[in-house]
Amino acid sequence: MRIGILGSGQLGRMLALAAHPLGHQVVVLGPKAHDPAMAVAEAIVAPFDDDSAIDELASRVDVVTYEFENVPAAAIARIALRVPVRPPRIALETGADRLAEKSMFRSLGIETAPFAAVDDEASLATAVRSIGLPAILKTRRLGYDGKGQRLLRTEADVPPAFASLGSVPCILEGLVRFDRELSIVGARGIDGSVVTYDVVENQHEHGILHVTRCPARAVPEAALAKARGAIEALLTRLDYVGVLAVELFLLGDRVLANEIAPRVHNSGHHTIEGAETSQFENHVRAITGAPLGSSRSIGASAMVNLVGRLPDLPRVLAIPGAHLHVYGKAERAGRKIGHVTVRATDDAERDLRLADMLALDHWSV
Amino acid sequence: MRIGILGSGQLGRMLALAAHPLGHQVVVLGPKAHDPAMAVAEAIVAPFDDDSAIDELASRVDVVTYEFENVPAAAIARIALRVPVRPPRIALETGADRLAEKSMFRSLGIETAPFAAVDDEASLATAVRSIGLPAILKTRRLGYDGKGQRLLRTEADVPPAFASLGSVPCILEGLVRFDRELSIVGARGIDGSVVTYDVVENQHEHGILHVTRCPARAVPEAALAKARGAIEALLTRLDYVGVLAVELFLLGDRVLANEIAPRVHNSGHHTIEGAETSQFENHVRAITGAPLGSSRSIGASAMVNLVGRLPDLPRVLAIPGAHLHVYGKAERAGRKIGHVTVRATDDAERDLRLADMLALDHWSV
Repeated sequence: MRIGILGSGQLGRMLALAAHPLGHQVVVLGPKAHDPAMAVAEAIVAPFDDDSAIDELASRVDVVTYEFENVPAAAIARIALRVPVRPPRIALETGADRLAEKSMFRSLGIETAPFAAVDDEASLATAVRSIGLPAILKTRRLGYDGKGQRLLRTEADVPPAFASLGSVPCILEGLVRFDRELSIVGARGIDGSVVTYDVVENQHEHGILHVTRCPARAVPEAALAKARGAIEALLTRLDYVGVLAVELFLLGDRVLANEIAPRVHNSGHHTIEGAETSQFENHVRAITGAPLGSSRSIGASAMVNLVGRLPDLPRVLAIPGAHLHVYGKAERAGRKIGHVTVRATDDAERDLRLADMLALDHWSV
Repeated sequence: MRIGILGSGQLGRMLALAAHPLGHQVVVLGPKAHDPAMAVAEAIVAPFDDDSAIDELASRVDVVTYEFENVPAAAIARIALRVPVRPPRIALETGADRLAEKSMFRSLGIETAPFAAVDDEASLATAVRSIGLPAILKTRRLGYDGKGQRLLRTEADVPPAFASLGSVPCILEGLVRFDRELSIVGARGIDGSVVTYDVVENQHEHGILHVTRCPARAVPEAALAKARGAIEALLTRLDYVGVLAVELFLLGDRVLANEIAPRVHNSGHHTIEGAETSQFENHVRAITGAPLGSSRSIGASAMVNLVGRLPDLPRVLAIPGAHLHVYGKAERAGRKIGHVTVRATDDAERDLRLADMLALDHWSV
């Protein structure tokens, strides 16, 4: 088949690299000619609001997917008139709106931090009274990696917060004193079949994912079951096709859903080497109507994001079980420009190899 | 770095797919715009004897490699004036000449079938007297996958044989009643470090590789040691940089070297999923001067070539542990257009999954 991808970053690149061996051709639409995905696919260089480019993409492919949440709704609607868009628009719309997302969790019985809608100064005051402090005020839309958020520690933080986020619709969330951040990635095929990857454990630095460990260390089975139950319920509710990620907080054996990403996800990058079938391949299989591949883990693995600048690559490649993924982006502070997955036979060996990787300390933001 | 590849077939395609994650750019020179490698690399479409195209390739890259043995020597020499060519030309020249190849084996103490040079009718008669029948007359150059060969069963087959191969320089080889065909793939870095993959077992159909099993079944340790010793000696003798394959015959615990391939090899395709580091990645690592990756096997695997036409792909993808590699070539009788690797936790499970794959029987030549 011919696959169109909206977005030309590293996720599009890794999707394209997974699509070629399956016999597909890939056309990427993105704003810059030298973006990561452009080197491994046919390129349409244009902004996402360029109707003629959108039409050209639709005319050249059999199915369209996307690599980021904030695709303009108008572009998706325009494409959907001509070819299927997968995952479905409802997932994109829900994932792009923190309030709709949290409300969906609640309606499925998936536990979340306390939350309330904030549409103005008055509703912020009401929400603070209901949820208490500390709490986090987030824009409903367009926030990621710690952007578009304000931590409200004391009453003094409340009055300026709403205006400082641009007086746009927000959500106030109770600050959860969680033990660890987890996530789960799963895929659903056109036939409704579902696979879920092992629950992973994520560590962030400066609001950007730094390390993912697969499997997560010492998570109670009850919590793992809740994570699997949550993603299965979400995949079904959304009549989903493709890969979905759910970010979670672990508190004892409680699991609180934080947010979904209706796409392949940074916390699933380790699946390229660390699972029988990668998240990228399973996304491609799903959107093209093929059977899903096994999500079984291959040994234990850990992913380290390369942020800002590249480490000394020969030293990375000298680490046993290290697998390098460079995205072809220019170095810039705070920018994800690659990742390294270390694979090992068990958790202990994985953590030793991860320590070797982290000791290089060139990945600093 | 920027890597140039002479040849735009499936080997070039899989090299390019391995090179991108390591942060390299790839330029492919090949005769056809829609060849397999062209979709995943920058393309120079030209014949291999086009000097201006050769010069353009050399001007755009830091190192040049090749994906087939029969690259014109003049092209290699021309490139080598400007940028390094790896593996070294001596390997290409030796591998392209069956007599030089067999003589190298002999000089290294690597056992072979009996052989003799055949340059005319008279030397063929002499060679037949020395080696006996049955024997195989092969052109010294340009033969592959069973082409350019004549089986001489009886004296009656001898007189027409030399002329039927075009009266070109040949080699007569004694026909070895081997138990099985094996091969070993290894890599050598610029620093002289060597890794070798597990010895594999190959089955051919109609002279084309059909199935590779990794590891090979029930090979005596003495034979495995001889295979490893042979490739290590060859890599050193050739001052090799890159991936080398050695095809072997197993007779009891004897191992006879048949031929080398100074490139990534069809019997190493399973390493994409079935080894810690694929042959393609290790070739790229070697030619770019990076440390080699581990060649450790990941479970047990088997590779099935897709020859002539594609099977029903959803049925392939439904086989547990199946990994599809479609090359993007048109279907044509006798043509390798893809392969499938099944990976499993052990040999028994591997063979069950392989049986599922072979039962599809769409791979027929």
